[in-house]
Amino acid sequence: MTRVAIIGGAGYTALELIRILLRHPDVEIVAISDIQEGQPHLASIHPSLAGRLDLCLEKLSPAEVSARAECVFGCLPHGVSASIVPHLLDGNTRVVDFSADYRLNDPQVFAKWYGQEHADPDRLGKVVYGLPELFREDIPPAQLVANPGCFPTSAILPLAPLLKAGLVEPDGIIVDSKTGVSGAGRTPRLTTHYPECNESICAYNVGRHRHTPEMEQILSTAAGANVDVVFVPHLVPMDRGILTTTYSRPVGKLTEDKLMDTLIDFYAEEPFVRVVDHFPGTKDTWGSNFCDITARIVSDRVITISCLDNLVKGASGAAVQNFNLMFGYPETTAM
Amino acid sequence: MTRVAIIGGAGYTALELIRILLRHPDVEIVAISDIQEGQPHLASIHPSLAGRLDLCLEKLSPAEVSARAECVFGCLPHGVSASIVPHLLDGNTRVVDFSADYRLNDPQVFAKWYGQEHADPDRLGKVVYGLPELFREDIPPAQLVANPGCFPTSAILPLAPLLKAGLVEPDGIIVDSKTGVSGAGRTPRLTTHYPECNESICAYNVGRHRHTPEMEQILSTAAGANVDVVFVPHLVPMDRGILTTTYSRPVGKLTEDKLMDTLIDFYAEEPFVRVVDHFPGTKDTWGSNFCDITARIVSDRVITISCLDNLVKGASGAAVQNFNLMFGYPETTAM
Amino acid sequence: MTRVAIIGGAGYTALELIRILLRHPDVEIVAISDIQEGQPHLASIHPSLAGRLDLCLEKLSPAEVSARAECVFGCLPHGVSASIVPHLLDGNTRVVDFSADYRLNDPQVFAKWYGQEHADPDRLGKVVYGLPELFREDIPPAQLVANPGCFPTSAILPLAPLLKAGLVEPDGIIVDSKTGVSGAGRTPRLTTHYPECNESICAYNVGRHRHTPEMEQILSTAAGANVDVVFVPHLVPMDRGILTTTYSRPVGKLTEDKLMDTLIDFYAEEPFVRVVDHFPGTKDTWGSNFCDITARIVSDRVITISCLDNLVKGASGAAVQNFNLMFGYPETTAM
Amino acid sequence: MTRVAIIGGAGYTALELIRILLRHPDVEIVAISDIQEGQPHLASIHPSLAGRLDLCLEKLSPAEVSARAECVFGCLPHGVSASIVPHLLDGNTRVVDFSADYRLNDPQVFAKWYGQEHADPDRLGKVVYGLPELFREDIPPAQLVANPGCFPTSAILPLAPLLKAGLVEPDGIIVDSKTGVSGAGRTPRLTTHYPECNESICAYNVGRHRHTPEMEQILSTAAGANVDVVFVPHLVPMDRGILTTTYSRPVGKLTEDKLMDTLIDFYAEEPFVRVVDHFPGTKDTWGSNFCDITARIVSDRVITISCLDNLVKGASGAAVQNFNLMFGYPETTAM
Repeated sequence: MTRVAIIGGAGYTALELIRILLRHPDVEIVAISDIQEGQPHLASIHPSLAGRLDLCLEKLSPAEVSARAECVFGCLPHGVSASIVPHLLDGNTRVVDFSADYRLNDPQVFAKWYGQEHADPDRLGKVVYGLPELFREDIPPAQLVANPGCFPTSAILPLAPLLKAGLVEPDGIIVDSKTGVSGAGRTPRLTTHYPECNESICAYNVGRHRHTPEMEQILSTAAGANVDVVFVPHLVPMDRGILTTTYSRPVGKLTEDKLMDTLIDFYAEEPFVRVVDHFPGTKDTWGSNFCDITARIVSDRVITISCLDNLVKGASGAAVQNFNLMFGYPETTAM
Repeated sequence: MTRVAIIGGAGYTALELIRILLRHPDVEIVAISDIQEGQPHLASIHPSLAGRLDLCLEKLSPAEVSARAECVFGCLPHGVSASIVPHLLDGNTRVVDFSADYRLNDPQVFAKWYGQEHADPDRLGKVVYGLPELFREDIPPAQLVANPGCFPTSAILPLAPLLKAGLVEPDGIIVDSKTGVSGAGRTPRLTTHYPECNESICAYNVGRHRHTPEMEQILSTAAGANVDVVFVPHLVPMDRGILTTTYSRPVGKLTEDKLMDTLIDFYAEEPFVRVVDHFPGTKDTWGSNFCDITARIVSDRVITISCLDNLVKGASGAAVQNFNLMFGYPETTAM
Repeated sequence: MTRVAIIGGAGYTALELIRILLRHPDVEIVAISDIQEGQPHLASIHPSLAGRLDLCLEKLSPAEVSARAECVFGCLPHGVSASIVPHLLDGNTRVVDFSADYRLNDPQVFAKWYGQEHADPDRLGKVVYGLPELFREDIPPAQLVANPGCFPTSAILPLAPLLKAGLVEPDGIIVDSKTGVSGAGRTPRLTTHYPECNESICAYNVGRHRHTPEMEQILSTAAGANVDVVFVPHLVPMDRGILTTTYSRPVGKLTEDKLMDTLIDFYAEEPFVRVVDHFPGTKDTWGSNFCDITARIVSDRVITISCLDNLVKGASGAAVQNFNLMFGYPETTAM
Repeated sequence: MTRVAIIGGAGYTALELIRILLRHPDVEIVAISDIQEGQPHLASIHPSLAGRLDLCLEKLSPAEVSARAECVFGCLPHGVSASIVPHLLDGNTRVVDFSADYRLNDPQVFAKWYGQEHADPDRLGKVVYGLPELFREDIPPAQLVANPGCFPTSAILPLAPLLKAGLVEPDGIIVDSKTGVSGAGRTPRLTTHYPECNESICAYNVGRHRHTPEMEQILSTAAGANVDVVFVPHLVPMDRGILTTTYSRPVGKLTEDKLMDTLIDFYAEEPFVRVVDHFPGTKDTWGSNFCDITARIVSDRVITISCLDNLVKGASGAAVQNFNLMFGYPETTAM
């Protein structure tokens, strides 16, 4: 049995994380912290949890959290996380961090894309990127794991095997993603107000989305060469799900069989990646930790199509997968 | 050609009103006021109006509005309207008021349900309730018309003819309404945040919704007796539309033929009420000024089902219908 | 470990049932039958199950199913079920039947509402109605359990305790239900074609829905008196969820405290009924086996509001709850 | 006053066409034909038209239609249209054809993509492609106009000016489109069954969609060079709207200002194309004949984002725009 705590408990990733952890036979949730006024009961913030977990949202210091929990899931915004996590690590707690703060290796890249200096720059470059499909061996010994972004996971899983095998060119890769609205978080804004975004689709943050350098860093590692990505996310009227369509150029002559076989072989032993023949829809992965992938060649262009649930494989499911690896539980437990 | 202005131009009813008025051959929109910072162009607030109406949202005093316009459409919140409208009327402007401020006859009823003293109590009881199907003759000479609430219109249109004809008992009438989210306005709140209200239906303001006394007042007039209503609204994951199901007890022996014939006869000449045999859905009235009605008798209970577009017949379409009657245009112009 | 089979495996209730059973530590799914051509793999019918269960949809006789499984979940249409179930029972298999065939006690009531003679009339009146909250003690020894209808569960759970306690009058109870589209099944029809039912709400089968006699039968048992119900279902643009609003008359003087306390006491020990103070939304129960209930008194009318996931507590979750009771597993296993 | 008829009146494009034509002061709809059994009243097929147009769906021969109408709108499936249209033209009727049958110049290209021989091959290459923004001068004298496909319009409008000006390379253009479900027509299928496509997004017909050669043909004309397109459509859970994101390579050094200015200049006089600075959403064009366009340069890639209502500018609105040009009415009438 492992004692875990969640900091930043009022959002959607925390809710999904709790749902998953409640199914985990070896986890006890001992604390949930947030900055809500008056320490409300969890069920008053998340009514779906009524009768399932009898905890209040407490305002806790990192030291208080560390004293209670062996593992902390950090559901804090970027920028905030890097000011809290070091204190948790000092307390010998292990951390799965959902924020972007520890995903990039280079503090200058962070500063450029996030518009602020990094609060804990010396740690960058030494933190494990928690994508087990690429970095499984680094996760068990890690004290801190940077949980991947939802868009990067959806783009890296289909592209990394192709780049690694040298099947596609590393430059000019186009990543056209479509996401459900929960990815925008739980704070009400006009863009996510129901009558604004329902029955509508739009692009946003074109060329400026902060998940771009994360994709480029991990894909460059896979390619062993500099990868640059044109990333355009779109907001789709649905709760959950990301579908990512990528376009890249093949290296030399490439058949669809070779393309698919490379993906199938790469993921043959993976419990949560399904390489499929049909065109998957996000609903196929709803509520699950799967990422479904297919690929085609059209007019000398390699097209990959991948989908996942942004709150599960794109966030909380991936976090529990990492937790399982860190604490020696079977990787698929609770999923 | 009539010069009109809109006050409170940033919301959904104003947007819908402008869409309708742009189709009106005899209307010139001369001013749109709101309290936005910096007098933004209309198209920056409502992108769908780009290239269609070249106006900015100005901060205007009632006197400035009156000086420009012969008719003002007031899209202000309740409470605010009653502090502005008297000044408009002093300026000899005619007003169609969307707020609830001038719908009730009794200032004490207003105070009880709206939790505040009425700012212009002497006028109450003398303002025309702008439902042409019941009060058409009072509208042309009126300087001020109180535009009906969306839920009341959906409940009054099916029930008034039955109460007037003495077919149903006036007490214990149940009104179970289902509304799209645009009825909640354009201000982002957690309850109308997409991932909260999408894929969910809930009741709200049970027994406390402010449209209750409005229904009771108008239906009592129709019945010539005190009508009391149990009103339960529900929030449905869709942009627009209200479906209202009412349950009442028949007076004596009543056949479904008699029931339907009464409705058909009552609305025989009405351009915007359709009495239909099938069960109408809100989509049948999407974007139109129609209210579709049917009725049944089940286990000695009279059931009416009615639907309309809350932004059109429930707000801006009704307002233009009133405007047409006030200014002598054919009632269906622009609709 | 219990070997189970599912007959009628291509629909939504079967899919949800499989999802739940895959989490059950003591269940082995040994066969899934359906009448699809060519014995397709389960994953080609339900892509979300790819990699999770390696079975094909077989065309199996009742005897073949009985030979393999200790328990059969029957996900067949009404009418069909009563021609298959007797053969399963002859084979000593235990059955949880999702259809309406074994819910009513009286073959004549069945014939009246379902428009056909019952194929197995002698068994009616002797089958357990699988609502553990009312009939828990009858379920463990049963060979055949009739799994309740989704609307009846949503109406019976709030009303039965009130009728049992004599708090509300048994006649003239109004049940106004709102359901997501998955309740209509998986066969494409114009009424459930996306552009027809999206962004629209409508009533259907007013006064004629077949769940009416089921509600009346169970509620009459609870009341010890004849209960009659006016039932109006509505189709809501969402995948899942039922919200039911009921209106009844109190017996004598009744306070809201007494009303709520009666519900709270009745369900104090129930794992899947939550009596809540707020107005619950269907999303609070999404994917779970909970039914959330609240109640109010407005203008001398008792109003209950209840919600559940039609595919879980309204179908497959209830079925697993029954299965757990029948086979001696903890009632909440896999949920 | 022009007498018009519609053939294929039961679908969504016909419904939208009727809605628009009912606002046209100079149009009389004299006949609507379809192959429904029993000549049902229009309102029984399209309940939203109740009380608005008193016509039945008749089974009419081309000669009967020609005898009544000066202009016929053909809302027939591809393949069928080419067997009917020649007879209409023989009858001296003018035709706006919604099908794909007369859009391509080359019968062999048609045969390759549509899997059938063309029924009227000699006419190909002589029919006007009804996109007024590119071919306005050819439309007034035409007897037959091929109304453009919805996806092609959304891709051609942003790309044609850039290709014409030589700003982007003609090869390897990626067109990633997202469409609402009404584009799939009104025939119920599993892929457009509400619980299947709601809350999900998927790609379909990747590299095989029949609108590909149509885009390539028109864009090649604009470019004066061979254009090849990689086209991937996606199905989005919403009724209407297409958003198209294109990716192409700039020719030489290109600034965003130059890019936008080219679009702004090209469409300066167009009533229905709005070049905007923000990222437009499909809701901005809901129910209107507008196409909103913006463009960016990211990592040496030109990105255009465009959106329109697939039933209006993508079908019926464009048809009325063509009709207005053919019959000498102001181009924006009824829109």
